[in-house]
Amino acid sequence: MRLSEYFLPLLRENPSEAQIVSHRLMLRAGMIRQSSAGIYSWLPLGLRVLKNVERIVREEQDRAGAQEILMPTIQPAELWRESGRYDDYGKEMLRIRDRHDREMLYGPTNEEQITEIVRASIQSYRDLPKLLYHIQWKFRDEVRPRFGVMRGREFLMKDAYSFDLDAAGARHSYNKMFVAYLRTFARMGLKAIPMRADTGPIGGDLSHEFIILADTGESDVHVHTDFLETDWQGFDIASWEAPALQQVVDHYTAIYAATDDVHDPQTAAKYGNKIVSRRGIEVGQVFYFGDKYSRPMGAVVAGPDGESVALEMGSYGIGVSRLVGALIEANHDAAGIIWPKSVAPFRVGLINLRAADARCRTAADELYGKLRNAGVEVLYDDRDESPGAKFATMDLIGLPKQIVIGPRGLAAGTVEVKNRRSGERQDLGIDAALAHLAAPHPLPLPASGEREGPA
Amino acid sequence: MRLSEYFLPLLRENPSEAQIVSHRLMLRAGMIRQSSAGIYSWLPLGLRVLKNVERIVREEQDRAGAQEILMPTIQPAELWRESGRYDDYGKEMLRIRDRHDREMLYGPTNEEQITEIVRASIQSYRDLPKLLYHIQWKFRDEVRPRFGVMRGREFLMKDAYSFDLDAAGARHSYNKMFVAYLRTFARMGLKAIPMRADTGPIGGDLSHEFIILADTGESDVHVHTDFLETDWQGFDIASWEAPALQQVVDHYTAIYAATDDVHDPQTAAKYGNKIVSRRGIEVGQVFYFGDKYSRPMGAVVAGPDGESVALEMGSYGIGVSRLVGALIEANHDAAGIIWPKSVAPFRVGLINLRAADARCRTAADELYGKLRNAGVEVLYDDRDESPGAKFATMDLIGLPKQIVIGPRGLAAGTVEVKNRRSGERQDLGIDAALAHLAAPHPLPLPASGEREGPA
Repeated sequence: MRLSEYFLPLLRENPSEAQIVSHRLMLRAGMIRQSSAGIYSWLPLGLRVLKNVERIVREEQDRAGAQEILMPTIQPAELWRESGRYDDYGKEMLRIRDRHDREMLYGPTNEEQITEIVRASIQSYRDLPKLLYHIQWKFRDEVRPRFGVMRGREFLMKDAYSFDLDAAGARHSYNKMFVAYLRTFARMGLKAIPMRADTGPIGGDLSHEFIILADTGESDVHVHTDFLETDWQGFDIASWEAPALQQVVDHYTAIYAATDDVHDPQTAAKYGNKIVSRRGIEVGQVFYFGDKYSRPMGAVVAGPDGESVALEMGSYGIGVSRLVGALIEANHDAAGIIWPKSVAPFRVGLINLRAADARCRTAADELYGKLRNAGVEVLYDDRDESPGAKFATMDLIGLPKQIVIGPRGLAAGTVEVKNRRSGERQDLGIDAALAHLAAPHPLPLPASGEREGPA
Repeated sequence: MRLSEYFLPLLRENPSEAQIVSHRLMLRAGMIRQSSAGIYSWLPLGLRVLKNVERIVREEQDRAGAQEILMPTIQPAELWRESGRYDDYGKEMLRIRDRHDREMLYGPTNEEQITEIVRASIQSYRDLPKLLYHIQWKFRDEVRPRFGVMRGREFLMKDAYSFDLDAAGARHSYNKMFVAYLRTFARMGLKAIPMRADTGPIGGDLSHEFIILADTGESDVHVHTDFLETDWQGFDIASWEAPALQQVVDHYTAIYAATDDVHDPQTAAKYGNKIVSRRGIEVGQVFYFGDKYSRPMGAVVAGPDGESVALEMGSYGIGVSRLVGALIEANHDAAGIIWPKSVAPFRVGLINLRAADARCRTAADELYGKLRNAGVEVLYDDRDESPGAKFATMDLIGLPKQIVIGPRGLAAGTVEVKNRRSGERQDLGIDAALAHLAAPHPLPLPASGEREGPA
């Protein structure tokens, strides 16, 4: 993409309404624009990141054997009356009356809706287990939306729901999602620590939040230092069979980590000064709540002996749009964003230092073409701007690699390649730069055939 | 995907609420489930088709040089007061009050919202032209929603918006979208005829609807028989330059075709009995409306001479979720759906006639693995059901090719390959069947590098 044609409305000034760095940088880098309080439009650069995050989430859901569906944003109020949550949910639920005065709502979550679908579709234990997910916009009418996409009102969420015949099956589904979450966040280069958590309005008695430690986090968390030293980069598992999964989950839940709501100082005291208190950003949460919805809503199947069994359920959320903000909180410096490669909007930024110079332009155009032909996503700054403005823009938007083409280098037959994260610079011949940047993606990509994905 | 694990809730009976074939077949084939009037959940099979349609639409928008953004579903009422449409829109607009009693609405379209984004972001003619699109759920509160996803309340739409300095530029943008639409529908195997159309609540004086002829269509259209004989399959263009595009648009708009609203019997009379009246399904519409929104909303740029110029705009919609229904209206028989290859949820249905027979199971499992390794999307009916039930299911869900593995064929070293559309059957050796089905995709895929896409 040529920057001269790209819709990238950068802001020169720090927007006064943005209190945290991710909100500030997303506005300055032209990733989002506020539509109304807590509601944003995603501009081209921001949408590319959002889609990369969504793609990783989807791939890991598929790999864990979850099947994708898509439920609507607008739900009928009756469904929520069946579970008893219509009144419980309070003012965070956006309530709507349609033209026939029927009570509707903009879904803040989908336990009721998926339970209705499954109760109408599944009659026998032979149709179990089922693990279904969707990635859809939700709405929660926060009193004071803030922190940009980190605490918006309209937000993109992946929510999965599991249906099993018994508690052991439900536990296995829970473990699948637990491990899928560890993989998902590791692929984004994030240290997301699973912590014992309160179940809140979803219900049940088993829940973990996946939390990234960050000073700007909204919640207090208490975590064993062993977690701080864990390297998640290479996280993977040997098998998706139940005992192997249980072993992984046991390993990660044996280390003390709890949100403030469920923090137990007495237990923590056993570990002495190994437990530290930090601020954290929640990026995912998993729940096991048994028959909380299936029983009142009549989601039952005929069991092996013909008896009627209420389904054992769990639900599993990841804040997809929130993750874009969380990724920036975890990856930035004074000059701007530093995207992990797996979610970067483009892999390479190509800067032509002298757009007016015919030789530079020819060389830059040619390299741009070659990079694209090699399948490298590249944003090409072909504008007639000062070198300083071009460097500042590239640092601000945070593409992992920068290539700088200028008259001096060209005279010597070289271009400069800069690593945005380390700041390291190399002068390379054009072919060497091309080979360097066209190298395969270094972060783990999904192995094929390991699990049944959408072929 | 193994059918024994797939969430595919088929209906045995014809649902009484479904009046048209696409609605009936989508419910029976477990593609969708109604949530409330005109609002549907997309189940795994349906979602795969929806995503294929969405992918083709996106690829053709990118190819035409449009840049993807994503605007939210909920918009502030103030925006629509600026254009004067807040009161005009009537009861089809779903109006909402949030917890602070602010007036909001669920967007039925996005002219105001995109105009606000562009006026805040673009100040100079040098930033033009811009062509932006998004693919997002919309809501129109129809009095009597019906025909399933063909006339739903919550629906997925691609809407693009163009911003140019002058009428000639705006016309070029209009032509780009016109041609992108011809390509988009041709790739889906649809004959979508561009017809002169009324501009309705969007405004302006130039508009074309893209309409598929079908007896179940909701509108009356009048069309020259030359269009009925046009073969769209191989549609393509030589260049995206302005004169070449204008030539294509002139060619297709020279043939008489009009919706009932703008039908001119006097002009039509010139063509004698060449003009026929039919029913049609609208799948897309393009509008040029100049400064209808930019002027009242103050979306202006500094022109080349420093003077302030209101942007020339157009908008361009495709009904993405509606297309899934329209595709079925155009592609079905008494036994069920017949998917065009480019949008089929799986390319191949593999039937094991005797799930209980070890030899059949081994052969079917093996072929399933080989097809998946060859990158073929395959749905594998490994259930313990009667052959009749399996044939009926495969015909109902309409995958382009079926492979049948049974004891008699295996004894002869063959499997049966059936073409769902032609009904043609062939006995092939397993390797020959594999080679036949793993052949590359026959419909035109986008050429690379022809236009600036999202690299």
